[in-house]
Amino acid sequence: MPAPEALVLLIGSELTEGRLRDQNGFFLSQELTELGFFVREVRLLPDEPSLLRAAFSEALATPARLLISSGGLGHTSDDLTADLWAEALGDVLQVSPALLAALEERFRQVGRTPLPYLERYARVPQRGEALPNPVGLSPGLWWERGLRVIVALPGPPAELRALWQEAVAPRLRDRFGARAPFTATLRTTGLPESRVSALLAEWEKRLPSAFRLAYNPSWEGVSLHLHAPAEIDPGLFEQQVQELRRLLAPYLYGEGAVSLAEAILHLCRQQGYTLATAESCTGGHLAASLVDVPGASEVFLGGVVSYANSAKETLLGVSAWTLADKGAVSEEVALQMAEGVRQRLGASVGVATTGIAGPTGGSPDKPVGTVWIAQVGPGAHRSAHRFIFPGDRQTIIQRATAAALSLLWRGLRQTLPQTSEA
Amino acid sequence: MPAPEALVLLIGSELTEGRLRDQNGFFLSQELTELGFFVREVRLLPDEPSLLRAAFSEALATPARLLISSGGLGHTSDDLTADLWAEALGDVLQVSPALLAALEERFRQVGRTPLPYLERYARVPQRGEALPNPVGLSPGLWWERGLRVIVALPGPPAELRALWQEAVAPRLRDRFGARAPFTATLRTTGLPESRVSALLAEWEKRLPSAFRLAYNPSWEGVSLHLHAPAEIDPGLFEQQVQELRRLLAPYLYGEGAVSLAEAILHLCRQQGYTLATAESCTGGHLAASLVDVPGASEVFLGGVVSYANSAKETLLGVSAWTLADKGAVSEEVALQMAEGVRQRLGASVGVATTGIAGPTGGSPDKPVGTVWIAQVGPGAHRSAHRFIFPGDRQTIIQRATAAALSLLWRGLRQTLPQTSEA
Repeated sequence: MPAPEALVLLIGSELTEGRLRDQNGFFLSQELTELGFFVREVRLLPDEPSLLRAAFSEALATPARLLISSGGLGHTSDDLTADLWAEALGDVLQVSPALLAALEERFRQVGRTPLPYLERYARVPQRGEALPNPVGLSPGLWWERGLRVIVALPGPPAELRALWQEAVAPRLRDRFGARAPFTATLRTTGLPESRVSALLAEWEKRLPSAFRLAYNPSWEGVSLHLHAPAEIDPGLFEQQVQELRRLLAPYLYGEGAVSLAEAILHLCRQQGYTLATAESCTGGHLAASLVDVPGASEVFLGGVVSYANSAKETLLGVSAWTLADKGAVSEEVALQMAEGVRQRLGASVGVATTGIAGPTGGSPDKPVGTVWIAQVGPGAHRSAHRFIFPGDRQTIIQRATAAALSLLWRGLRQTLPQTSEA
Repeated sequence: MPAPEALVLLIGSELTEGRLRDQNGFFLSQELTELGFFVREVRLLPDEPSLLRAAFSEALATPARLLISSGGLGHTSDDLTADLWAEALGDVLQVSPALLAALEERFRQVGRTPLPYLERYARVPQRGEALPNPVGLSPGLWWERGLRVIVALPGPPAELRALWQEAVAPRLRDRFGARAPFTATLRTTGLPESRVSALLAEWEKRLPSAFRLAYNPSWEGVSLHLHAPAEIDPGLFEQQVQELRRLLAPYLYGEGAVSLAEAILHLCRQQGYTLATAESCTGGHLAASLVDVPGASEVFLGGVVSYANSAKETLLGVSAWTLADKGAVSEEVALQMAEGVRQRLGASVGVATTGIAGPTGGSPDKPVGTVWIAQVGPGAHRSAHRFIFPGDRQTIIQRATAAALSLLWRGLRQTLPQTSEA
């Protein structure tokens, strides 16, 4: 049996006019995929009745077993979703006195006077259901039509998520009982996509046709996503994943939803190492990516953002002579920064970045995008690498941060006993 | 004349399966709206030939004057966009020897051997154009069919943006010369949305009906987006904007695409101030948000991420006695951190954050989310504020960073002569 199809509609002119960044599409795509649905499409639509009417009737003409919308359930004049779904499904909305009383009671409990617009939120479908909203006013709406389910959820992400977890996901699990497909995500760093692809070419040729392999390159590395339908033999899937692990072993930093920073902190914890950072061009992004991981404080002692040359001298002890002789963007300064922060904080490992993020500051022998990354420790480890990153300031900063994480992971990995696996 | 319509197609199973968070839809929605287009829809689609074929032909059946796609232009087997657009438009792709030679040359310049797959990136439409990609391999593709333009852009956000800025936006401006609607974005910080709304209530009542005001709250503050159709009198629009400026003056840090960090750097440059940061719970995010602004180095000298208590002592001179007596998350430590980094780097202003981002580390009198933010300088200015932010670790870090920027802007703003305007 193929995966049941789902179609997602995200409603609101604030989305299509770029005034608000959508958060629900990504969440619903993840959750629906997890539940075993194939998401055939996510549509973002403005609050225009004619476009919404057309989109709803197009959605009802697809083979999708689940139609799910977010947004447009408020009480202002541009909130059209409930009425237009009712219209498309030949249904009518009516005020439920019980729901209205409950909403009014919630207002009184927080010391507010119930307002007339609460009636809008108390409307329930005659031939459908209202799903109580645990954190906001607008209930979710649920219709069943033959094999198909139609769900309308409120747009605020906290409300959508609460309704999803408490009401929608359990009902969908009951109703579709879809067996989730097999999926595995293997994350590598240190090899460009073309070399990962070359490494896997032979194996890919022998991969059974029901399997699908997708490449997801990012600045941190290449993630491989292996997918197979729920019907196949679980042993067969596991066998292919193990083969993939074996081929990628030297570059594999983790599986599933792990980040490179998490993998680094994990390696450090395993070996009892502590970390310190010294950043010039990455300006705090490297430290921030480590601190973003819960529990970072066990491993990450701190860092210095030595943006001005004077800060490199004062806070890190970089020699004024080296700065003048070799320039701030040099192998020697990168190594002195890493050594300086390592010593000052008493860390096992010091990592440093120094470079020219642009748009100004480049020269013929050190163009914009030139970045030195150094690592000192654990033990006697000392290395520095030069990069020339293309792109604008933001891109250079992001790529330099990712490259520092990648070098750090590889440096830490080398210190592991040879028999150990990622 | 109504605004020309645009339709956006974002292609890639990594988007519909929730493996990658889309960034292009938001960017294109903003840019197209800015150029005067009405975005009738943004569709996210998986790499399935039948669904893409249907979506392309449906797009060609709408009245949209501009169809723009992102993604699916790479060299792997799931990259279908170029071929399917060519098919839908009755066109053929052919390898351009000149483009192939240029791509091979780019490989050689960075010391790489040109690979056979470069041929995929050298294919250009016979009855369309290839737009050179300044930062990646895949050119953009451009077709004109009657009144309609069809553009295919690569999926990596840095490549899409570079192509957009250098080639697509200028061409669209030339071709459509749409009279953009009047828009103004005024950015405030330091007031919650409900208080901004109360401040503007009287003015909003008198606003002519053709105008639309939207509120965009973020952690950094509330942005107000005023919109009026292209047909109205420009003087009338300007008059309303001036009224809005006057009402918001004490909180208004900028207009248009300016960030709070940019406004801070601007205020510092105006007054000849330099900045230094000392971060505990924000872990580098505060420094990073300043460094992200081009030209930050004129103002921002550097900072310390003093994550461990030992780092607060060693790098900032925070007293061990105060740490033991008051705790790391306290007014006294925050002030000593700000003073310490200011003195060590010789900056006009020192800003510090110290708090508990969670998920662990909270206590009854200092729950997770407790954050102290201190500012010392310019001159004799000294202040510290306590916050208790709700949310998960990421949210607390983001809100603390935003609050530090907001306090910094307000602190700097107070030192301006009273007559000055933002």
